[in-house]
Amino acid sequence: MPESDAARYARWLQIAVEEAEAGLASGGIPIGAALIDRDGRVLGRGHNRRVQDDDPSVHGETAAFKAAGRQRSYAGTTMVTTLSPCWYCSGLVRQFGISRVVIGEARTFSGGHEWLAENGVEVVVLDDPGCERLMTGFIAAHPALWYEDIGEDDTE
Amino acid sequence: MPESDAARYARWLQIAVEEAEAGLASGGIPIGAALIDRDGRVLGRGHNRRVQDDDPSVHGETAAFKAAGRQRSYAGTTMVTTLSPCWYCSGLVRQFGISRVVIGEARTFSGGHEWLAENGVEVVVLDDPGCERLMTGFIAAHPALWYEDIGEDDTE
Repeated sequence: MPESDAARYARWLQIAVEEAEAGLASGGIPIGAALIDRDGRVLGRGHNRRVQDDDPSVHGETAAFKAAGRQRSYAGTTMVTTLSPCWYCSGLVRQFGISRVVIGEARTFSGGHEWLAENGVEVVVLDDPGCERLMTGFIAAHPALWYEDIGEDDTE
Repeated sequence: MPESDAARYARWLQIAVEEAEAGLASGGIPIGAALIDRDGRVLGRGHNRRVQDDDPSVHGETAAFKAAGRQRSYAGTTMVTTLSPCWYCSGLVRQFGISRVVIGEARTFSGGHEWLAENGVEVVVLDDPGCERLMTGFIAAHPALWYEDIGEDDTE
């Protein structure tokens, strides 16, 4: 029996979750992602490294994109991420023509995924309770870090 | 006499042009940028490093953003760039609330700068002939590299 889309997406999300958990374990913001090619191979995976590298440019999705190295085309690829991509990462997906975004959850934060869907990207939101717990717990424990990561002022 | 906006923007653009020229001189794609704070100080500057670092995630704007390090707020900052920012870099500007984008030219490529203007970012396009010559010359000499950098298929 061929693997269902739902099973495949859950399997890919697990890779992103492993990255998020690795990020949390190393003192960082628990958001992970992976870029998957059209045949289901992992091209790159990574997690947010704002804290670990003191680098605001490394979100989960940009880390996975970087780890995938130079590609001639992103047609047919899927970006799987534990959290709805922010505008920065949504712009990445749109610019490079990544075909699909699979999102763990979009409740704690919702970036540009609806804009991506309007612009031809296939968007799948899995509403995964584990991803939501991961972010909810992190935001409660480290609100300043979280708001810094999305460029918002938590003192407002 | 206080410096005019035009003079200040031209001076900032010169920093981005120096970065673009450094990128070209080191074998890369000639796009440079700088992030300037509300008092006119350079927080970070950089250029596209796709070729030099074999890294597709380093555009001029993301290089400048990374070089600026972690910032609590981007209110009042200006991203100056030799070329209209692609969607990836436009998303960066929107997500982090960078207040202004000063663009060398938007003729050889136009990304998301109109979308930024619609979303409250001050956008200034300088229509600089030097920036345009830099890109036109590069694209003519290295079309495959250029199309790779913006995720487009030049064989279509």
